Amino acid sequence: MTARPAKFVARYQSFAEVGGPAHGAARLAALRAELAARGLAGFVVPRADEHQNEYVPPGAERLMWLTGFSGSAGLAIVLAEKAGLFVDGRYTLQAPAQVDGSVIAVKHVVNEPPSAWIEANLGAGGRLGYDPWLHTPEAVERLTKACRAAGGELIAVETNPIDAIWSDRPGPPLAPIHPHPERLAGERASAKLKRVGEALKGADGLLVSDAHAVAWLFNIRGGDVAHTPLPLAFAFAPRDGRPTLFVEPQKLAATIGARLGRFADIASPEALVPFVAARGAAGARIVFDAATAPARLVQALEAAGGKAIVKADPIARMKAVKNAVELAGTRAAHIRDGAALSRFLAWFDAEAPKGRLTEIDAAAALETFRRETGALKDVSFPSIAAAGPHAAIAHYRVSEASNLEIGRGLFLIDSGGQYEDGTTDITRTISVGLPSAELRDRFTRVLKGHIAIARAIFPRGTTGGQLDTLAREALWRAGLDFDHGTGHGVGVYLSVHEGPQRLSKTDSTGLEPGMILSNEPGYYAAERFGIRIENLVVVREVKVAGADRPTLGFETISFAPIDLRLVEKKLMTREEVAWLDAYHSETRAKLSPLVDPPTRKWLKAATQRVS
Amino acid sequence: MTARPAKFVARYQSFAEVGGPAHGAARLAALRAELAARGLAGFVVPRADEHQNEYVPPGAERLMWLTGFSGSAGLAIVLAEKAGLFVDGRYTLQAPAQVDGSVIAVKHVVNEPPSAWIEANLGAGGRLGYDPWLHTPEAVERLTKACRAAGGELIAVETNPIDAIWSDRPGPPLAPIHPHPERLAGERASAKLKRVGEALKGADGLLVSDAHAVAWLFNIRGGDVAHTPLPLAFAFAPRDGRPTLFVEPQKLAATIGARLGRFADIASPEALVPFVAARGAAGARIVFDAATAPARLVQALEAAGGKAIVKADPIARMKAVKNAVELAGTRAAHIRDGAALSRFLAWFDAEAPKGRLTEIDAAAALETFRRETGALKDVSFPSIAAAGPHAAIAHYRVSEASNLEIGRGLFLIDSGGQYEDGTTDITRTISVGLPSAELRDRFTRVLKGHIAIARAIFPRGTTGGQLDTLAREALWRAGLDFDHGTGHGVGVYLSVHEGPQRLSKTDSTGLEPGMILSNEPGYYAAERFGIRIENLVVVREVKVAGADRPTLGFETISFAPIDLRLVEKKLMTREEVAWLDAYHSETRAKLSPLVDPPTRKWLKAATQRVS
Repeated sequence: MTARPAKFVARYQSFAEVGGPAHGAARLAALRAELAARGLAGFVVPRADEHQNEYVPPGAERLMWLTGFSGSAGLAIVLAEKAGLFVDGRYTLQAPAQVDGSVIAVKHVVNEPPSAWIEANLGAGGRLGYDPWLHTPEAVERLTKACRAAGGELIAVETNPIDAIWSDRPGPPLAPIHPHPERLAGERASAKLKRVGEALKGADGLLVSDAHAVAWLFNIRGGDVAHTPLPLAFAFAPRDGRPTLFVEPQKLAATIGARLGRFADIASPEALVPFVAARGAAGARIVFDAATAPARLVQALEAAGGKAIVKADPIARMKAVKNAVELAGTRAAHIRDGAALSRFLAWFDAEAPKGRLTEIDAAAALETFRRETGALKDVSFPSIAAAGPHAAIAHYRVSEASNLEIGRGLFLIDSGGQYEDGTTDITRTISVGLPSAELRDRFTRVLKGHIAIARAIFPRGTTGGQLDTLAREALWRAGLDFDHGTGHGVGVYLSVHEGPQRLSKTDSTGLEPGMILSNEPGYYAAERFGIRIENLVVVREVKVAGADRPTLGFETISFAPIDLRLVEKKLMTREEVAWLDAYHSETRAKLSPLVDPPTRKWLKAATQRVS
Repeated sequence: MTARPAKFVARYQSFAEVGGPAHGAARLAALRAELAARGLAGFVVPRADEHQNEYVPPGAERLMWLTGFSGSAGLAIVLAEKAGLFVDGRYTLQAPAQVDGSVIAVKHVVNEPPSAWIEANLGAGGRLGYDPWLHTPEAVERLTKACRAAGGELIAVETNPIDAIWSDRPGPPLAPIHPHPERLAGERASAKLKRVGEALKGADGLLVSDAHAVAWLFNIRGGDVAHTPLPLAFAFAPRDGRPTLFVEPQKLAATIGARLGRFADIASPEALVPFVAARGAAGARIVFDAATAPARLVQALEAAGGKAIVKADPIARMKAVKNAVELAGTRAAHIRDGAALSRFLAWFDAEAPKGRLTEIDAAAALETFRRETGALKDVSFPSIAAAGPHAAIAHYRVSEASNLEIGRGLFLIDSGGQYEDGTTDITRTISVGLPSAELRDRFTRVLKGHIAIARAIFPRGTTGGQLDTLAREALWRAGLDFDHGTGHGVGVYLSVHEGPQRLSKTDSTGLEPGMILSNEPGYYAAERFGIRIENLVVVREVKVAGADRPTLGFETISFAPIDLRLVEKKLMTREEVAWLDAYHSETRAKLSPLVDPPTRKWLKAATQRVS
C-alpha cells in the first residue's frame, strides 16, 4: 500500500475499525451481575437512542459497547445463561465477525424473531427488563406478548443497567443549537405550528419525538450526532397556543433562546415526564409518533389518565413536501456538490489507472473537494468507496483493515454532503481501464432502470411501490435484480434518509410534488463487482396534453457525468439515449462555470453526446 | 329496437331487471317489527351466504330482498329510525337507483364506514343483532368494537330475522354433486388431503369453509349457485386421518356417496356445529379461513374450549397452483372457447355495421356459439356486452331496460365459459365502422399495457403488485389510467375469480408457476366509450441465458383476434409488434381447424401481420 496523498484529508468521517468481540464476555458478565442484583432474569438492548435515530450519540451506543456489533440496527437480549443478537439481512455477515460467538448467538431477525426466542428461552416467572426510553410503544407491545407467552413478565427499568456498569460512558452531546433561517427554511416556525395544530383534529397536542421533526418545526439545527445537523430534543405542539421545546439549556445561546422564546416555552429535558403526566391528569388526548415515541412517555400519559393516540407523526409528511425555498436551496447545493464530485471524477480518472489509489484515498479526496467548496458542513454519511468485490456489498464501509488498492475494473463511490441549503446523496460507478462486455451490459441495464424512474410520468396518487418496478424491468429481462429498494426520501439540511416517501416494492405512500427521493438502482455480482447509479429527484407536476388526470413526474437535481465507457448504446431505446444526452448537456452547462480548467476539459469529454 | 334474431338464445344468463326500490319501505317496516319483538335495536344485513361466496343461492339474497340493491357486495344496517346501505365505488351509482332513498341512506363504504355509522347512531345500550353464519370473525370483531364505542352491544341471533318475515324465501339449493375425475383434476383427493395435513403444522385440523376449496379438495363439483359449479358444503380436514364432508345427503347420489365414503366421512350440515364443539371440548387447535369462515363456527369451537387459528386457508394457494393436467385441460378449453368467440366476432363484423344488433343480441349470440361447442356447462359470469358509453362502466350488466342498439364506435364484450376441463374469461373491444385517431391512440396504449404483462420476465418471488405497473405505463405517459386491477386469479372449472394471486397495485402475493391470471388493462372515458383487452395467462418458468436467479414469465392461453383496425402501429415498439404478430399467427393456427369456412376466412384477415 502506498502512502496516502497528504493533501487529502477526511475530517468528517473516520476509517478506524469500530466494534469487535474483545470485550463481549467481560461486559456480558458485568451486565448479568447487575441484572441479578436488580432481580431481573434478563435485559433487552436495542441499537437505539431516545429518538430512534439512525445516527446516535456515543453514549447511546450501548449495543456496540456490550456486544462489539457496530451495525446501525440490531437488538440483543441477555439472559442469565444465554444471549442473542438479532440483526437483519444487511448484517448477517458483519455481526458474526464482530461479536464473540461463544457468548452471543447471532440470529436473523426475520427467521428467528426476538419474540420467538423470548418465548423459548425466558422461562416461567422470568422478569425481562427493558429501558422504556429506547423502545416504541409497538415494540413494547411485542415484547410484552412474548414475555406473557413464556409465562414471564416485561419490566420497565428506571435507569439503564448498562449505564451502571459502563464507567466511561460519554455524557449527552451538548452541541449549540443554531437557527435555520427563513431564507433557507421558506416558512416561519409559527406557520408550521399552525399547520400541525390543524392536522391534529380531535387531539389536544402532538408529542414530537422525532428529533428531525423538532428541527423542522422550530427551524433550528444542531450538532448532537454525526452527519445530520440534529439537535437532540423533544417538543410538545398543542392544537392551539404556545409549544414547548424540551432541550438542555446549555445548547441554547442567549440570542437563539430569546428568539425561540418569542413563540415557544423552553424547558429542560427533566421537565418532560412531569409535563406529560400533568397533561394526562388533565385528561388530554395526545398524539405520539408510532415510529419514534419512547414508550416511557406514552406510559407517563396513560398512567396519569390521559389518552395516547399512537400513529404516524403528521409532521413527517409535511416535512417531506419541500417548499419552493427549500427546493431552490437544494438545487443550488446539488450544483455545488456536483462540481466538487466532478473535480473528484476528473482527478480519479487521471490517477486511478496508475494503480496507486486506495479506497480511503478516494473517500478522503472526495471529502476534500467537497470541503473546498467552502460550504460543506459535514458529509451526509460515511462515503461508500468500494473497489472491485467490495462494491457488491451494498452498505460497504471502508476501514483501515478493509482498505483495498483500486485496480482495473469497477469502482463505486456513494457519497453526499450536508450544506446549509441542502443535503446531497449521489453514486457513480466508474470503470478503471476498459470494461468487459459483461460489465457494459450490466451497467447499461442499471442505467435503463435509472432512466425509467427519471423519465416516469404517473398520475397523482401513484405510490413509490408502483414505480419501483420501472427500475428493475431491464434487469429482470436478463434474469437479474437487486436486493434493495430503488430509492429513499431525503431531507433538506437534515437526514439523508427520511420518510414517508420511498421507492420500494412494499411502499404505499402516494407521492406528492416537492418530495425528494433518491433514484438508485443497482446490480451486484457477489464477490466480483457492484454497480449503482444514483441521483436525487424531486416530484413535480407535469402538464400532459390531453391528460385525464393530474400527472406527476420527476426533476433530476443531481449533476455529474455518468461513465460513458460503461454504456452499451445498442441496448438503449432512442428515448433513453435522448435522456442521457440531455442530462449530460445540462450537467456540462451547470458545472463548467464552477470548476477549474482541467476539470472543465474532462467534463466536456465525459459529457459528449451518445446519439 | 328490432326483433331479436330467434336463432340466438341465452340459457345461462338472464337480462331481466332485478332489484329495485318497490318493496323497501314495507320490508324494512316488517323487519323492524320483528327486531322489536326480539328486543333488538337493529340488525346487520350483509350480501353474503355462509361461505362468503361471490354468487349466492337465491335464499341468501337477503340484502336484495330487503333493500332492492342487487350488487355483488354491500351491507345494510337497519336501526329503529334509520337504515344505511354501505357499498363500494362500483355501486355508488347503481345503489341509489335501486333503493328507496326515503327509507335507506346509501353510503360509500370507504368514506363513511359502517363502524363509524354504528358509533354515531346505535346509541348507548343499543343491542345490534347479526347472523353469525354470514360474517367472518374479523368482520364480527369490527362490528363488536363499533358497538362498544357506541356504548351498545353486538348480539348473535340464533335464527335470521329476515327469514322469519320473508315468507316465500327459496329453500337451500340441492343440485346433485358429481365427481371431478382425476383425468381432469390431475391429483387424487387423498393426495390433496395429505398435502393439506402437512401444511397444518401445529394445528389439529382445518375447517374448510370456502366451498371452492371443498370442491377442489374432494374433487367434486355441483350446481348450487349460478356460473360456478359449486356444491355448497363445509368440510373438516384433520392433520391425519379421515376428513368429514358436511353436505345435504340429497345432493349425493349413491355412486358418488360410496366413492367419497371410501376416504371420507359424510355428515349432514346440521352435524357441523356439534362436530366443531366436540373438537373444542377436546382442546383441538383448528385453522379457520380468515376470508370465508362463519364466525358461528369459530365461536362454537372457542365456547367449548378449543383454540381457533384464523388465517389464510392453505388450500387457496394449493388450488391456485395448477398441475399439468389442469393446465392441459384449461388450454384445451381456451382453444375451444376461442373458436366460439371467433365465430361470434366474424358474425358480429358482418352484422353489426348493419345497425340492427342490440347488446342482448350480442350476448345471446355469443352464448349460443359457446353452447354449440357441445361442451359448455354454463357461462362463467353474465357477459358484459357494452355498446358506446356503456363500456365505460367497468362492470356493466345489460338488462332489457338498459339494452342499447349497437351503433358506430366501440363495442366491448367481456365473457367466459365453464367447461369441465377449464374456465375462460376473455374481453375484446371491437370497432364498428372506422375508428377515430383518439380511439386508436387509447386502444393502442391499452394494448401496449396488455403486451407488457404478456411479455413480462421477472424473478421468482415477484408479486402481482409489482407487475401491475407494467400494464399502466403507456397510459400514464399520456396522463391516463384505469381504476381497476390489471388481473385476477382464475380457477379450473371453478370460480372465474379466485385468490390469492392477482395483478393489482395493493397485491403482495408471490407468483408461482401454474397460477392462472387474467391480463386485462383498460381505458374508460366516462359516458363516451370503454376499452379493455383481456386474455388469461399462466405463470411459467422461463430460461434466460446468464440469469442470476430463477425467472418466471407468462404463457398467454386465450386465443382470439385483437381488432387491428384499432392498432396504431407507430405507437408500438418493434418488440410489441412482434408479440402481436406471433400471437395472431398462433391464434390462426390454433383456431382455424375448429371453425366454419366463413369464420376461417375472417380469421385469416383478422390475424394478418402488422410488421
